[in-house]
Amino acid sequence: MTKLQNDRFLRALNREPVDVTPVWMMRQAGRYLPEYRATREKAGSFMDLCRNAELACEVTIQPLDRYPLDAAILFSDILTIPDAMGLGLSFNTGHGPKFDRPVRTAADVQNLPLPDPEGELQYVMNAVRTIRKELDGRVPLIGFSGSPWTLATYMVEGGGTKEFGKVKGMMFSEPALMHQLLDKLAQSVTTYLNGQIAAGAQAVMIFDTWGGVLTPRDYQAFSLKYMQQIVDGLTRENEGRKVPVILYTKGGGQWLDKMAATGADCLGVDWTIDLADARRITGDKIALQGNMDPCILYSTPQRIREEVGNVLASYGKGEGHVFNLGHGIHPGIDPENVAAFIDAVHALSGQYHA
Amino acid sequence: MTKLQNDRFLRALNREPVDVTPVWMMRQAGRYLPEYRATREKAGSFMDLCRNAELACEVTIQPLDRYPLDAAILFSDILTIPDAMGLGLSFNTGHGPKFDRPVRTAADVQNLPLPDPEGELQYVMNAVRTIRKELDGRVPLIGFSGSPWTLATYMVEGGGTKEFGKVKGMMFSEPALMHQLLDKLAQSVTTYLNGQIAAGAQAVMIFDTWGGVLTPRDYQAFSLKYMQQIVDGLTRENEGRKVPVILYTKGGGQWLDKMAATGADCLGVDWTIDLADARRITGDKIALQGNMDPCILYSTPQRIREEVGNVLASYGKGEGHVFNLGHGIHPGIDPENVAAFIDAVHALSGQYHA
Repeated sequence: MTKLQNDRFLRALNREPVDVTPVWMMRQAGRYLPEYRATREKAGSFMDLCRNAELACEVTIQPLDRYPLDAAILFSDILTIPDAMGLGLSFNTGHGPKFDRPVRTAADVQNLPLPDPEGELQYVMNAVRTIRKELDGRVPLIGFSGSPWTLATYMVEGGGTKEFGKVKGMMFSEPALMHQLLDKLAQSVTTYLNGQIAAGAQAVMIFDTWGGVLTPRDYQAFSLKYMQQIVDGLTRENEGRKVPVILYTKGGGQWLDKMAATGADCLGVDWTIDLADARRITGDKIALQGNMDPCILYSTPQRIREEVGNVLASYGKGEGHVFNLGHGIHPGIDPENVAAFIDAVHALSGQYHA
Repeated sequence: MTKLQNDRFLRALNREPVDVTPVWMMRQAGRYLPEYRATREKAGSFMDLCRNAELACEVTIQPLDRYPLDAAILFSDILTIPDAMGLGLSFNTGHGPKFDRPVRTAADVQNLPLPDPEGELQYVMNAVRTIRKELDGRVPLIGFSGSPWTLATYMVEGGGTKEFGKVKGMMFSEPALMHQLLDKLAQSVTTYLNGQIAAGAQAVMIFDTWGGVLTPRDYQAFSLKYMQQIVDGLTRENEGRKVPVILYTKGGGQWLDKMAATGADCLGVDWTIDLADARRITGDKIALQGNMDPCILYSTPQRIREEVGNVLASYGKGEGHVFNLGHGIHPGIDPENVAAFIDAVHALSGQYHA
């Protein structure tokens, strides 16, 4: 395999020394970039873009051609697994994802197939292989999946939700059925991420977008337990190098100690907790990724630089910090402000490393 | 004034002994009740219902006629103040609130009038007076307002939002202007709540629905600071009795210590933190209100009773607990399940009081 020209990101995940803090952005391949919007238009639907390895590769690399980012992330969607399970996924502009066949009954759960990474999901593996080839060692490639709980929310609700009435209704009324569904999803996610690793993903991230809507007890029983199952089942080494795992629960700032105990290498952190507190809570034993409020990017280069400084100072001296936003970049952001952001991280972070 | 027949709620807010834990529900006068839907239809628009003192009184009392609740809450909306400021509020079914004239510029902020509680907002004061008369001492009446930050989010965005790009854009790019807006809102909320207290509200609650989308630093500077200003300006005694103040920041579990330092009497707590932790964090020096996940009410009476037991046990022995949901009750809940919930709180809580 080609040698990595920039391995800052992987080194930070392993809490190894780096010259400056590595940085990437959730949704860095996305609508804020005019070149993304052009490719998206060419592709057809959003899922058509995900399914086309060449175009998925093109949009994955677009932000790297603009900014000195320290990692690439596979362009895909968290709902590829439920889609491959045959639930009939569509995206209606302005209304988010929708499933034609939501999962509601015991029969629905039992009938769910476990998708084959090199079968129904081969288009994702092909995208990983194409991107790795095209990257040719510039930066590492991150693979990802939604968490079982997060996938279950969409599958049971039949789409996005603000209230979580159906999925929590099932969780509270039929916990055994919910556990069956989550176990199936944990198996699928494990196979899926191992497939991505075999195809060339050099780190993987599990997005638990909706774990934060649970009580502490339910979070542990219905979300974290299944992320643990995945962490335990992942291939942790490939191409002679460790493949780090990042867990991210939006709104999970209160449970970072529990998340750290899974044996993941890094925790993604949103902006509602100071990194200094997150580092203290996790005993400075695990890497942290985050956590600038994405809305800062609506302001000015000067204000962005100031906030980058605040976040770096909050983490403080020492290794184990990957700079990121606390959530995905918004579509309305000016690409010039992103340039100011990425540059500020590299320019201001040298002093925090030995 | 008529003597209160049931003052458990006020006693708990003051951390005084009670026989059983008092309970009420956020949005207890609401769409889950068929009698509410009937009155709502009779009234016309949602704001027509708020503006009609007799009908607002009718829906306020409906849940008390069904359930042995320990408090009534004024039927109104958090957006009455921006509406009275002339921003042109409307509610479009399924799309939430909308303002015709959002606040975006320095001139917009400077031109905002401070509404007179006995002027543009007199309909709210009339509702308070009518409800107090009709309650005739059954239970105390809670008045309320949105927090300055929460009102500002709707005023700047022009309605609801998931991303908070415009309001945070203003906060990050023009902090002085945002502070001017929040100061004006804090003045208005103070006058408005003092008006409600003079009209007969026996406790007041400040709803900071969107404080939890801020960083810890911004929460203190842009939300908590202005709730502090309100707490400092409130009439804290009326009719020879203390008028307790409840602060509620959704997603504010990480900042309860800071909230407690405002001198409020009680903190509303959502379900993402255990009450035992909340009590520890606040040094057992302030009453706590909460915190059952509203989605539990989608399950069965037996499961609801079990969860009520969990929440009571988490708070533990001693005074200062007002039972509530962690957020408003959902429209789709079966009223029979609410009966099971309210009964369980009273039936299971005696053992926690001396």
